[in-house]
Amino acid sequence: MGVFPNENATAHRYSGPIDRENALSSPDPYCLSRPAQRKARPRRREGLLDHLMARIAIVYHSGAGHTRKLAEAVERGVLAAGGQAVLLPVEAFNSDEPGPASQARWALLDASDAIIFGAPTYMGGVSAPFKAFLDATSQRWVRHAWKDKFAAGFTNSGNLSGDKLNTLTTIMLAAMQHGMIWISLGLHPPASDDLNGPGAETINRLGSFMGAMAQSSVMLVADLAPPAGDLRTGELLGERVAILTARFLGERK
Amino acid sequence: MGVFPNENATAHRYSGPIDRENALSSPDPYCLSRPAQRKARPRRREGLLDHLMARIAIVYHSGAGHTRKLAEAVERGVLAAGGQAVLLPVEAFNSDEPGPASQARWALLDASDAIIFGAPTYMGGVSAPFKAFLDATSQRWVRHAWKDKFAAGFTNSGNLSGDKLNTLTTIMLAAMQHGMIWISLGLHPPASDDLNGPGAETINRLGSFMGAMAQSSVMLVADLAPPAGDLRTGELLGERVAILTARFLGERK
Amino acid sequence: MGVFPNENATAHRYSGPIDRENALSSPDPYCLSRPAQRKARPRRREGLLDHLMARIAIVYHSGAGHTRKLAEAVERGVLAAGGQAVLLPVEAFNSDEPGPASQARWALLDASDAIIFGAPTYMGGVSAPFKAFLDATSQRWVRHAWKDKFAAGFTNSGNLSGDKLNTLTTIMLAAMQHGMIWISLGLHPPASDDLNGPGAETINRLGSFMGAMAQSSVMLVADLAPPAGDLRTGELLGERVAILTARFLGERK
Amino acid sequence: MGVFPNENATAHRYSGPIDRENALSSPDPYCLSRPAQRKARPRRREGLLDHLMARIAIVYHSGAGHTRKLAEAVERGVLAAGGQAVLLPVEAFNSDEPGPASQARWALLDASDAIIFGAPTYMGGVSAPFKAFLDATSQRWVRHAWKDKFAAGFTNSGNLSGDKLNTLTTIMLAAMQHGMIWISLGLHPPASDDLNGPGAETINRLGSFMGAMAQSSVMLVADLAPPAGDLRTGELLGERVAILTARFLGERK
Repeated sequence: MGVFPNENATAHRYSGPIDRENALSSPDPYCLSRPAQRKARPRRREGLLDHLMARIAIVYHSGAGHTRKLAEAVERGVLAAGGQAVLLPVEAFNSDEPGPASQARWALLDASDAIIFGAPTYMGGVSAPFKAFLDATSQRWVRHAWKDKFAAGFTNSGNLSGDKLNTLTTIMLAAMQHGMIWISLGLHPPASDDLNGPGAETINRLGSFMGAMAQSSVMLVADLAPPAGDLRTGELLGERVAILTARFLGERK
Repeated sequence: MGVFPNENATAHRYSGPIDRENALSSPDPYCLSRPAQRKARPRRREGLLDHLMARIAIVYHSGAGHTRKLAEAVERGVLAAGGQAVLLPVEAFNSDEPGPASQARWALLDASDAIIFGAPTYMGGVSAPFKAFLDATSQRWVRHAWKDKFAAGFTNSGNLSGDKLNTLTTIMLAAMQHGMIWISLGLHPPASDDLNGPGAETINRLGSFMGAMAQSSVMLVADLAPPAGDLRTGELLGERVAILTARFLGERK
Repeated sequence: MGVFPNENATAHRYSGPIDRENALSSPDPYCLSRPAQRKARPRRREGLLDHLMARIAIVYHSGAGHTRKLAEAVERGVLAAGGQAVLLPVEAFNSDEPGPASQARWALLDASDAIIFGAPTYMGGVSAPFKAFLDATSQRWVRHAWKDKFAAGFTNSGNLSGDKLNTLTTIMLAAMQHGMIWISLGLHPPASDDLNGPGAETINRLGSFMGAMAQSSVMLVADLAPPAGDLRTGELLGERVAILTARFLGERK
Repeated sequence: MGVFPNENATAHRYSGPIDRENALSSPDPYCLSRPAQRKARPRRREGLLDHLMARIAIVYHSGAGHTRKLAEAVERGVLAAGGQAVLLPVEAFNSDEPGPASQARWALLDASDAIIFGAPTYMGGVSAPFKAFLDATSQRWVRHAWKDKFAAGFTNSGNLSGDKLNTLTTIMLAAMQHGMIWISLGLHPPASDDLNGPGAETINRLGSFMGAMAQSSVMLVADLAPPAGDLRTGELLGERVAILTARFLGERK
């Protein structure tokens, strides 16, 4: 394809207009050489995927950084399972001027085997910037460009339950409109005899099934929240999507 | 009306086939004389409702007793706000043989100013026995018998989030089909800097808005869960429905 | 209140930055004198509401004009039932610079007895501009400024069913977050023995309950769609909200 | 496996207690020899699936026969795409006495590569008998017996839109709880310049994406409704699930 990096550079991250002013005019806006700066790259599990690498795009919006933390956890999971990952904030799409940089950005999504969508829950649903991205995908929708790709989702909000399920449902419905195939979180909820519910370290702490849910107190900055269990849940979603996608790749190509 | 008890007997509870074998053949299946056994009846708040009493039916299903605990909390709230309450388990409707006892039971709902619906969340939605009750209301639906009544809802499940929102949404949609008016929980979510989230004593601990949500560990019997904060949230839902319904009663009659 | 017009001027429409360049600097951005231009003002039904007029704000987004047609139908219904109506496109809020004009605009919503929200369904959910408005209401949410107001909703999309229910659910959840009280559409679905389903002239043609649904072919401009039955459904929603709100006003004030 | 028939007998249908009184005690409750009675078995498309046959179970509830018509359409689609299909009404599961016949019935679901779930929309959600089936799957849920199977869904109701989306969402959430992978309908909505909307012959007439939607007038018996377009939509869902499942089978085994 040429859009995704080669197999030796599995981790890369979009760092366009959001991080660097001149990225749009850069000949290499996707910073394919950046993986070297990533410390502690997760080791690939032996034997999981011997020859096929799933290309997973993670598109997300984050207001105060908490959802970005979750998106990065999802990315770690993809890498740990031997997949390739790109992390794309929606601002990159929403602020787009038509042109080669914009085309390259959308081409990354088009070239993905799976897209994992993530948004914070604002006022009971996906944040407006994330919805603006979803609405902008209608050009892909018209020609069913993403049909049969795999999809998954995650969200973060200030409450344990809140209306997070509506956010995941809205994301999932957009994926359904695209004719995609939705991968569940695939984790049992925890059992705990603590009246407060499962603690901050617990995997699938909130008991979600359609995607990964995280909760970050509005009083805690993104360095402190979401807690470890929620981030680990995000990692496991990334792993699961990478593994299932790779498993199905043989027949798709 | 004759169906609801007089104003001096605001608390009464259905105790038919579920509790007593011979209730269906009893001339007084609603046990209107039982309020005397209730200890510690909540004091009515002075001045809230001077002359009008909202008649609130609480229809619920409970598998292991946790949702019943929540239903009883909702009832306490109704009483605390000066309303009249009947607590009706769905089994009373689902096992119905046509006849006078059945008619009296449905007449209680027909005579209510508001109905608060409650169900546990099983496999991502309302429990089947509760859905059987909702389906049985279609005879009321055909003639819009409950149009413009007030409605509200609550649910309990083993997980902090789970798919509780889908349960409330399904209950609410049935109320919408009836042409009812839905009262939100009306509580802000808690703010907490605890990474584990708000503790078991916290009001609106789970951060819900459409109705009251409770979480009971599957490892804890109904004597121990849902925790105090969730039960208090149920009480506040009952209070709110009773107060708003009474406020609007003057113009409705 | 001073924000809503007096009782003799029940129909007025926001015509700020969207329609007129200089509206923001106008001392009278809400054009309270404009009702005179409205031809064929619906006659107020005799005896419905003798002394109280419900103040109903209709906030909507429309991409190609179809949802605006529906919003105007809702407005006609409010007026027909003797209510006061303001029609507010979300662009007025989304483009806001802080200042007196912005404050006056939000004050209209704050002064309303009920708010009816409307949005097209894009990619399975509320349009992004409407979601941006919902997210901006979080300042009202923090202080529960709209608690106990009545709310209702409507949507339009290109498909008969589509994902319109998700749009209404998302709107409703935002209203729930505000602690509002949701008024159902309150209409039975039509019965029809036509295999094609109820025709374009039919009230509640699509069989909706949570709010008003309309369908406009993407091949038809807003002069032609949504069809008459859907617009009449919108009118009936406006009537219903105005009547119920006025009925409850006596106790609220 | 032994539970599904061999490749030469791709069509078979459960005909236990619902159709025949003595089925439960029959040594062959699944009537594996019945395909011969099926006239006009759809021709298998050449080259689609050369060696792998997806085993697809279709579990459904039907009150008045309309949803069964849709279920049979889904089955035709599975067969047309070269898949194996079993059609299982939920009554077979809900009336179960524990025993070998019951075990064989559940074993069919356990042995499936994909399960397509279908229910009518009653009072805004899945019918109670279908919910009873979903709740009974919790024994499979506990041991994640259906994890990574494919899933899809369909529904029928009397209205064009109604609350069908909530039915599909509830089905989908149960599949998510099982850790399944959800296949979208994958069809674009029709474009039509008819004010009445797309006609009865139109594929994806109602514009659905998460699954197949059908509408049957309550005034028309199941011989007449749902209309041809909705049934064809069901067929296409069956085809799609069979094709995608077979495509992914190679890696799964």
